[in-house]
Amino acid sequence: MRNIAILGSSGSIGQSTLEVVRSLPREFKVVALSVNSNIIKLKEQIEEFHPKFVCVGNSRLAAKLSASLGSGVKVLSGAEGLDELVKHKDIQQVMVAITGSAALIPLMSAIKSGKEIALANKEALVMAGAMVMRLAQKHKVLIKPVDSEQSAIWQSLGGHDALSVRQIYLTASGGPLWSLPQSKFKQVTVEKVLAHPRWKMGKKITVDSATLMNKGLELLEAMFLFNLKAEKIKVLIHPEALIHSMVEFNDGVIMAQLSVTDMRVPIQYALAYPKRLANNLAGIDFYALSQLHFARPDLNKFPSLALAYQAAKDLGTMPAVLNAANEECVEKFLARKISFLAIPKIVETVMRRHSRIASPTLNQIMSADLWAREEAMALAC
Amino acid sequence: MRNIAILGSSGSIGQSTLEVVRSLPREFKVVALSVNSNIIKLKEQIEEFHPKFVCVGNSRLAAKLSASLGSGVKVLSGAEGLDELVKHKDIQQVMVAITGSAALIPLMSAIKSGKEIALANKEALVMAGAMVMRLAQKHKVLIKPVDSEQSAIWQSLGGHDALSVRQIYLTASGGPLWSLPQSKFKQVTVEKVLAHPRWKMGKKITVDSATLMNKGLELLEAMFLFNLKAEKIKVLIHPEALIHSMVEFNDGVIMAQLSVTDMRVPIQYALAYPKRLANNLAGIDFYALSQLHFARPDLNKFPSLALAYQAAKDLGTMPAVLNAANEECVEKFLARKISFLAIPKIVETVMRRHSRIASPTLNQIMSADLWAREEAMALAC
Repeated sequence: MRNIAILGSSGSIGQSTLEVVRSLPREFKVVALSVNSNIIKLKEQIEEFHPKFVCVGNSRLAAKLSASLGSGVKVLSGAEGLDELVKHKDIQQVMVAITGSAALIPLMSAIKSGKEIALANKEALVMAGAMVMRLAQKHKVLIKPVDSEQSAIWQSLGGHDALSVRQIYLTASGGPLWSLPQSKFKQVTVEKVLAHPRWKMGKKITVDSATLMNKGLELLEAMFLFNLKAEKIKVLIHPEALIHSMVEFNDGVIMAQLSVTDMRVPIQYALAYPKRLANNLAGIDFYALSQLHFARPDLNKFPSLALAYQAAKDLGTMPAVLNAANEECVEKFLARKISFLAIPKIVETVMRRHSRIASPTLNQIMSADLWAREEAMALAC
Repeated sequence: MRNIAILGSSGSIGQSTLEVVRSLPREFKVVALSVNSNIIKLKEQIEEFHPKFVCVGNSRLAAKLSASLGSGVKVLSGAEGLDELVKHKDIQQVMVAITGSAALIPLMSAIKSGKEIALANKEALVMAGAMVMRLAQKHKVLIKPVDSEQSAIWQSLGGHDALSVRQIYLTASGGPLWSLPQSKFKQVTVEKVLAHPRWKMGKKITVDSATLMNKGLELLEAMFLFNLKAEKIKVLIHPEALIHSMVEFNDGVIMAQLSVTDMRVPIQYALAYPKRLANNLAGIDFYALSQLHFARPDLNKFPSLALAYQAAKDLGTMPAVLNAANEECVEKFLARKISFLAIPKIVETVMRRHSRIASPTLNQIMSADLWAREEAMALAC
C-alpha cells in the first residue's frame, strides 16, 4: 500500500489517476488531493477517497469548501498550502498533474522532501528541466514520467542509461492536419484543429498536436528526463498511435512500448513502478490490427517542430521562451485572434528577439517566460 | 573480458558468434571451440582465435587435426572430449550452437558445471525442456536464448516473470508459402520452399519455416524458457520480420523487440548480457520503412503449427516425438521421397500412435525420439 497525493486532481490526468486508484484499492491510498478552483469535483473526490488533506487555489475557496464538509479533512489553500501538503510525512508518492508553470514550485518542493514523483506536467521540465533533474539527482528522487511517450521511452530503456542509447524514436500521431496539404494550412480553422483523430485531449494540447509543438515539447522533456542530446531524438509520425516511442540501443536492438491510447496505462505504470500490476485495461489485438504506419515529419510543413529543435540546441532560457510564446499564441488562435500559420511565425520572432541566458536561475526562467508572453501578445495584436 | 567456449563453431551460429568476438576483442576471449567434422574450418578458427582447447567428433579427426597444428592447442574428441571441454575451469560462458539432439548432453554438463549458457540449439529445449530448466534452476544457471524470437521475448520481459505476462506474440515471417493459396500446396516443390524471403538459413529450418513447424518448435522452447502455458503464446504472422516477438503484460503494456534480421544481434546480446555493448550493426530506419504488417496464421493451411500446439498441451515425451518425426519427414521431403503435404500428415500419425510418458527420464525421451524416427521413416516409404 502506497500513500499518494494527487496535485491537480480535477483535471483529466488527476481523474484518470483516481480511476487507477479505484481499480487497485489494495495498492494505493489517496492521502491528499489538490485542485485550483473546481471545488465541486474535489468535494465528490473527498467523499469517495477520504483524503486527510486537500488544497485549493485560495483561502476564499478553502472557506467555502470547509463549510460544506464535515470534520476529518484538513483544507489548505494557496502556494503555502500546497507546499505544506507535498511535504507531509504521510505521503510517499506525489502525482504532479497540475498543468502549466504552476507545477514547478510544488514539484521542486516534493523533490526536496524526497517523495517519489509521478510527473504528468510538461512545462516544468520544458522550462526548467536542467534545474529539476539536478535537484532530483541531489535528493536521489526518481522522476517517473506519466506522459505516454516519456513512459514508453522509460520502459523501453529498461534500466539502461543514456550511454547505451544510439537514438530515440519519439512517435507522433501526426495530429489532425497530418494529411492536409501544406497549401491548405492558411485556411485551417479552430474547428478543424480540434477534431483530433486519436487522443481525446484538452484544447491547448490539441492545437499543439496540430502544429507538432507537442512533440517539440516532448523532445525537450525527453532530453532532460533521459539525459539525451536533441540530435539523438527523432520524431516519427505513426498515425495509429500504438507504439508510444522506441529506443534504439547502441547494439542495434530497438525496444518499443505499445498500448491502447488510454492514459491509465502510463499512470498505473508510474504509480506501481517497478511492479507491473494486473488490471483489466485492454491490450492490442494484433490479429485484428493488420498494419502499422510510419513516416518522417516535414519540418517545412510543421515549423513549430523545427523551432523546438532550435530551442533544444540553444537550451538555457530558450525552451521557456518557446513554451511561453507558444502558449500565448495558441490562446490567441483559439480566441480567433490569429491564424494557424501565425502561431509558429510569432514564436519564431519571439525566440529571435530573446537574449538567451545559458545557465539561468529559477527567477531568470520565470522572467524569460513572462517576457516571451508579453512579446507574443504584442505581436499577436 | 569473458572467456567463452563455442560448441559447434563451424556452423552458421558458431561462425556468427566468432564474428561478434572478432568485433569486440576486449570483451570476449575464445578459450575453446568444437566442431563435429569440419576440421578445415576449425583450423582456420584456431589460427585466428588461438583457443586453448578444441574438440572434434572422433579420435581419427583429432589425430588428423593434431598432425596439422603446432603445439599450444589441446585437441579433444568425442562425447568425453566435449564433456571435459565444457567443464574446464577457464571457461565462464558456453555458446551451445550444436544442432540437433547432440547438444543435449554437453548442455546439461555445462549447466551442472555452473557455466553461463548462451543457447542457440532448439532441440534440447523442445525434447527435454522441463528437465533442462529444472537442472538450470538447481544450479542457478541462466539460460540465455540466442534464437531471435526467444531473445526478443527475454528482452521484452525485462526481468519480469511469467506471473506478469498476459500473453506473448511470437512473430513469424510466414515463410516462403505464406501468400500461396492452400489449393496450390499439393504442387509445392523443394525449390519453391528453399526460396525463403527473409532469413538466409539452412535447408531443414527453411522447410520448417514453410510448414510453420519452426514456430511450433519455438512455441515449445518459449514455454520452457519462460515458464508459460501454450495458451498464453500466440503466433503472429509479421512478414517484415523486424519485430522478433512481443510480450503483453497484465497491465496492458506491450513491449516489443526489433532489429534487422542479423543473428549477430541476439548472439551479442546473449554473450554480453546484462550489458548492451556498442557495435556497428545497423538499426532500423523507420523514416524509410513506412509499414509493418500483421496477420493471424491459418492452422488449416499450416497444420504443423496445430500439431505443435497439441504437443505443447500434451507435453511429456510428445514434443520429442513431434520434433523427431518432423526431422525425418523434412529429410524425406528434401530427398524428394515425400510431398510437402505429407510432412504434417506423417507427423500427426506418429503423434497419434505414440504412448506418451508424462514425466520421462532422459533415456525415455531418447527412446521416444528414436521410436518416432522409425515410425516416420516407415510411413514415408
